[in-house]
Amino acid sequence: MKVYNFSAGPSTLPKEVLIEAQKDLLDYNGSGMSVLEMSHRGKVFDEIHNEALSLFSELLGISDDYYILFLQGGASQQFDAVPLNLLKKGRADYIVTGNFASKAYRQAQKYGDIHIAASSKDKNYTYIPDVDNITFREDIDYVHITTNNTIFGTKYNRLPKTKAPLVADMSSNIMSEVMDINKFGLIYAGAQKNIAPAGLTVVAIKKELVGDPMDICPTMLNYKTFADANSMPNTPCCFAIYIAMLNFRYLKKLGGVKEIQKINEYKAKLLYDFIDNSDFYTNSVNPADRSIMNVPFVTPDKDTDIKFIKEAAENGLVSLKGHRLVGGMRASIYNFMPVEGVKALIDFMKKFEMQNK
Amino acid sequence: MKVYNFSAGPSTLPKEVLIEAQKDLLDYNGSGMSVLEMSHRGKVFDEIHNEALSLFSELLGISDDYYILFLQGGASQQFDAVPLNLLKKGRADYIVTGNFASKAYRQAQKYGDIHIAASSKDKNYTYIPDVDNITFREDIDYVHITTNNTIFGTKYNRLPKTKAPLVADMSSNIMSEVMDINKFGLIYAGAQKNIAPAGLTVVAIKKELVGDPMDICPTMLNYKTFADANSMPNTPCCFAIYIAMLNFRYLKKLGGVKEIQKINEYKAKLLYDFIDNSDFYTNSVNPADRSIMNVPFVTPDKDTDIKFIKEAAENGLVSLKGHRLVGGMRASIYNFMPVEGVKALIDFMKKFEMQNK
Repeated sequence: MKVYNFSAGPSTLPKEVLIEAQKDLLDYNGSGMSVLEMSHRGKVFDEIHNEALSLFSELLGISDDYYILFLQGGASQQFDAVPLNLLKKGRADYIVTGNFASKAYRQAQKYGDIHIAASSKDKNYTYIPDVDNITFREDIDYVHITTNNTIFGTKYNRLPKTKAPLVADMSSNIMSEVMDINKFGLIYAGAQKNIAPAGLTVVAIKKELVGDPMDICPTMLNYKTFADANSMPNTPCCFAIYIAMLNFRYLKKLGGVKEIQKINEYKAKLLYDFIDNSDFYTNSVNPADRSIMNVPFVTPDKDTDIKFIKEAAENGLVSLKGHRLVGGMRASIYNFMPVEGVKALIDFMKKFEMQNK
Repeated sequence: MKVYNFSAGPSTLPKEVLIEAQKDLLDYNGSGMSVLEMSHRGKVFDEIHNEALSLFSELLGISDDYYILFLQGGASQQFDAVPLNLLKKGRADYIVTGNFASKAYRQAQKYGDIHIAASSKDKNYTYIPDVDNITFREDIDYVHITTNNTIFGTKYNRLPKTKAPLVADMSSNIMSEVMDINKFGLIYAGAQKNIAPAGLTVVAIKKELVGDPMDICPTMLNYKTFADANSMPNTPCCFAIYIAMLNFRYLKKLGGVKEIQKINEYKAKLLYDFIDNSDFYTNSVNPADRSIMNVPFVTPDKDTDIKFIKEAAENGLVSLKGHRLVGGMRASIYNFMPVEGVKALIDFMKKFEMQNK
């Protein structure tokens, strides 16, 4: 049975990338070694690492004013690393638009005077606050946002204008649509949704923001440790970097981020149009703020949701269970979810609706 | 050409493990998904994760008094995490037996009163201090050692007796010989030498030591964050955990750690005996303290060392260059380096000696 994986992450990879990785798994490029076992200091891996770093910059159009860092520990570790590296005046403002935005805010609190400038908690995070009507404090070190909210299925379509550097967790929509990274002081993302398998965390940070962390900043959370060592002060997660490189090549061949954005918008439109035209399925997100990566939806009642998830899985449509904070279903349709996967989901939704209406 | 990889890490994996991973790379166990892309919260990965955790305990004979944690960031991140979690009185003693031991000591210094109880720096770390003649301070939180020194090729054969919990970085000899982990308060290791590909860091910590970190401890460096969530507060490095599971199965089938220890000792003896009987190659480590994992050696002069490394690589014996702190060559012969690899190295060394004497 053909399986489509709608997991919120780790997520579907391109089949041609998996086939190439499989072919080379015991002997990469005639080296006689697997990428899983070769030295990260050797010439062979060095080429992989540098190509991945350079394609990341190229695909996102990031200027030379930024360091690109390949780290470990996930976005959650960046929730600490960001304040530890950027707080100088000890003050930062956060926009809280979901569960991870809220975690980022809470983890930052132990390091300074951290303030919620805006929140959409009042409506269970079903919208993005109007970025033109947010007042940020003076004398802050940065403003933190979460560009796409994995659990609640929202995304920013416009960025807040800030005097302080703008910092963004882009874990669930990095490289899925054109965004001008050069407007940000720092962006970070767990790579396991749109870029790579689990194990890689990517950061782009303006060079001028690196090098003056808080005294209590652990050495391995200090961006300078990685900036000074081309992201290899110690052994990186080599295999995830290798698959990232293959994915970047795949995206480049496809025409870059602007092309994958078209496909992503097409997939999302198919699914939202179907839901909106149905009186059986509902998505409760403010339409203007809908994510094109994560689409939460429900049937008329909870028991039917449970039945949906079970029968969908039996039909090869897996990991559709919504997060416990939202319930129902969530279809994560990241970069590498093929259009056919979304069509297969819609076909199943149609059948299920007829049988359960 | 058959290639043997003597890298200090990441290092050689068992061929049968790589073949199994290759076979299942596009479809693990009939799930229709690659382990590279499946949800870490799904049933399929959950089984992999729990089997890996449980085989790790079983192979090392670790009692239920310990949490086993699968982390990211490498041993270098533990150099910060250990003091951040364990310092209560603010004092710890370190035995400094090499480069990583020294880094662990330096990174800990920002968090408290950290003292070098013993060091072998006086002889460029070519020996392990006599553990029976080390005086530790009173009222310390822990004593830190490095059980095997990757760069200098030494290892502890006896443990210091300490009142405070003993903490060990076992990155380069974990699971390579029988050690009673239950004597330690905490052990940690980057897994990329004897256990798994890069990306996984393993910790075993006495339960009673978890839960009262320093106030400044980042959430994702707090062991309790991981202990409370069965090592999955966020997305782990799934593929490295999967390969670890396969390696643990391989080791179990072989007869466990006591069997791999015999093979490791045999490999090391072959190489050391050859070096000791040669008047061309030299290993300058105190014989009683020699590592069975990392074997540094030199020829009579530096130019010949360079020639050796180059010609060895041309003959399929790769990553033999010694660390810049030691020079010369280093053969890392971890768990999964086959006996034939060591024999091929010795054969090459014989030939090279005849041609260059």
